Amino acid sequence: MKYDVIIIGGGPAGYTAAEAAGKAGLSVLLFEKQSLGGVCLNEGCIPTKTLLYSAKIYDYARHASKYAVTVSEASFDLPKIIARKAKVVRKLVLGVKSKLTSSNVTIITGQGTIINKNTVQCNGETYECDNLILCTGSETFVPPIPGVDQISYWTHRDALDNKELPSSLVIVGGGVIGMEFASFFNSLGVEVTVIEMLDEILGGMDKELSALLRADYSKRGIRFLLSTKVTAFEKTEQGTNISFENSEGTGILLAEKLLMSVGRRPVTEGFGLENLSLERTERRCIKVDEHMQSSVEGVYVCGDLTGCSLLAHTAVREAEVAVHHILGKQDKMSYRAIPGVVYTNPEIAGVGQTEESLLAAGTIYKTIKLPMAFSGRFVAENEGVNGMCKILVGDDDTILGVHVYGNPASEIITIAVMAVELRLKAEEWKHIVFPHPTVGEIFREAL
Amino acid sequence: MKYDVIIIGGGPAGYTAAEAAGKAGLSVLLFEKQSLGGVCLNEGCIPTKTLLYSAKIYDYARHASKYAVTVSEASFDLPKIIARKAKVVRKLVLGVKSKLTSSNVTIITGQGTIINKNTVQCNGETYECDNLILCTGSETFVPPIPGVDQISYWTHRDALDNKELPSSLVIVGGGVIGMEFASFFNSLGVEVTVIEMLDEILGGMDKELSALLRADYSKRGIRFLLSTKVTAFEKTEQGTNISFENSEGTGILLAEKLLMSVGRRPVTEGFGLENLSLERTERRCIKVDEHMQSSVEGVYVCGDLTGCSLLAHTAVREAEVAVHHILGKQDKMSYRAIPGVVYTNPEIAGVGQTEESLLAAGTIYKTIKLPMAFSGRFVAENEGVNGMCKILVGDDDTILGVHVYGNPASEIITIAVMAVELRLKAEEWKHIVFPHPTVGEIFREAL
Repeated sequence: MKYDVIIIGGGPAGYTAAEAAGKAGLSVLLFEKQSLGGVCLNEGCIPTKTLLYSAKIYDYARHASKYAVTVSEASFDLPKIIARKAKVVRKLVLGVKSKLTSSNVTIITGQGTIINKNTVQCNGETYECDNLILCTGSETFVPPIPGVDQISYWTHRDALDNKELPSSLVIVGGGVIGMEFASFFNSLGVEVTVIEMLDEILGGMDKELSALLRADYSKRGIRFLLSTKVTAFEKTEQGTNISFENSEGTGILLAEKLLMSVGRRPVTEGFGLENLSLERTERRCIKVDEHMQSSVEGVYVCGDLTGCSLLAHTAVREAEVAVHHILGKQDKMSYRAIPGVVYTNPEIAGVGQTEESLLAAGTIYKTIKLPMAFSGRFVAENEGVNGMCKILVGDDDTILGVHVYGNPASEIITIAVMAVELRLKAEEWKHIVFPHPTVGEIFREAL
Repeated sequence: MKYDVIIIGGGPAGYTAAEAAGKAGLSVLLFEKQSLGGVCLNEGCIPTKTLLYSAKIYDYARHASKYAVTVSEASFDLPKIIARKAKVVRKLVLGVKSKLTSSNVTIITGQGTIINKNTVQCNGETYECDNLILCTGSETFVPPIPGVDQISYWTHRDALDNKELPSSLVIVGGGVIGMEFASFFNSLGVEVTVIEMLDEILGGMDKELSALLRADYSKRGIRFLLSTKVTAFEKTEQGTNISFENSEGTGILLAEKLLMSVGRRPVTEGFGLENLSLERTERRCIKVDEHMQSSVEGVYVCGDLTGCSLLAHTAVREAEVAVHHILGKQDKMSYRAIPGVVYTNPEIAGVGQTEESLLAAGTIYKTIKLPMAFSGRFVAENEGVNGMCKILVGDDDTILGVHVYGNPASEIITIAVMAVELRLKAEEWKHIVFPHPTVGEIFREAL
């Protein structure tokens, strides 16, 4: 049998493509070597949010007196938090599986290996297809710092399943993953240090808001070393000695535990990609067109493997676009309004252009900034907490970018995603009736 | 001096109109007889949300074990909750005042009385204007049930400032106000009964979701008497005897405390409205055009006085439209996407058409329903809690209405407000990249 579509990788890109194609009546075969849902569902987005929510509930309890609620003693049970995380993941993996099954997708557990654009092998069997969608995702990148082979360290995966709290944790890399774990372990009372090579945490997010977040976490006891390069690791009896250098000179930090969250990179090996001569971008990623098709007709690439955004929601949309192209349906990928969210507490989120990207492009823009306290609901629900909303508007009044620091930034940013994607003018956006009182009203108030 | 604009009433409609007109350079005089911010800020939206948030924090503490957090004992301090509410209101009233002052609005504390369309009197002084904007709002409606004059009862105002918990509370009227107080007092341990004349609570919201909410609150101990008419009140030593009748017969309930939340009606008296011969609607409200102008040129009506929606966010938008018309700026009022939100826990929210309104109008539509558990974040943050999302789509695929039961419905409904107001087709809405994992993704998942 020849399948209409074979998909390699069952993460957000892969399972979305499989479901969409299957629902549309195509015959679909999906290879997943480990667990449906990929990194996102099994060891990324979902498990971190589950842990972070327990930390939030613990934070609520500890600070309840701000709202005239008295909690005599609050504690947490880390093994139980981890167990709940596992339960949530299990439930959602089953959900994905059942959606695929009801869309008539054939699932094979194993590494599919590309022989040519119409042939994939797995466990000694050969499978044929008309279209191939590659969704192999990304993996943790561990930089080749001297000594890294001699030490033991956590990746996000280990940090998610760790059942015993260290007294101190050094996090190398202050990006999204690093900061979410910094937030989690800080809430649970661990002494956290974040080392970041760039001059601000959360690269890619609005720099001013990232600095506000960093200032708030500094107050809560997290130590930040910015513009700091790790030069060597050395194993000691107490843990790991981390040598670093920055403009102030060199130093050594002792870490009881060490979390490596420097970054992620596309998985390009181990599945026969070399058997297809796909054109690459200058950054060695696979080149795709606006339909997610590679330079070889019938071969599509979705998700982190494009090296483009490394976000689950981008992958989901890319997968839909690819399947629509296979189906001959009008659609194309737009990267104008891909939101970025960091689930710290408070959260930070942004969409569209940043001041940094606009300045780099030489675009003329206007900045509107408003403290979150201009939202009545924010004031009602955030005693003693500050926040900021920033809207970037083009000289023709188009909404170019929106950035928010304050809960629930993750949820309200979608309002701004719509404004940016639909290229609304400030006035058009302001004609929308926002419910009162909500935190989301901050956008309308700012306009 | 003749003012460009005189505004009567300093609630959301009044203060928005004043700020917008002032910012645009018009000379503005605002009359407010009591406190800036009106009912919404002083005794409505904001204070209730502040109280409800304390109740939510208390709920979080009591149910923390669901997230592996142990709270040995949680209690609350009602006088302190009330005091915090007062502080939040004070802060926001000052915010409104400072925005008006910086927009050069003259504020007079007192009841402005209309003499004619260009003349208003207050405290013996006479003021002239070119345009008049009437924003007198609404007041609690207490039905003339036999015995109502002989008993003492709470309105929302009393319930907000009550510092001692009754052991039992009967709420007459299961609309938004009734249900928010029901939720608050239920959380704090009061035995609550809700009497509603209609066959479902929360009239105007999606009936199916309202029933889900009612079922959840029933499990938490609230007693509901639907399709039940209160026939008489009688004062007793223990409180009030409430006689009622429904299809099962008649009965008497003893209420230690009684909250009247049957409804609100526009304030049409006490400010000289009779001195303008404004055309009325069949429901005796003031008739306005799409620019919020009444039948008399230069006289505008915004907010609850139009009797149209009785929601602060409608009032805000109407006020902007009125001022834009005065300024000669193109704009008109749209009621297509006015969201409704109930801040129970979980929240319920909706926008656009309901199944009930579509059926009544004979419109062909399709219903998409999805349990909230299809959102990974909802699962991560709502242990043991159910919810539902419902999207109503027209036969040309236009999004006609969206209804959500589950937190944070209040914040994510704005995403749907945009879809409905901008008349997006299902497919266009689905092209938006929703951040993952968020609860708001439920819309995209449902499409």
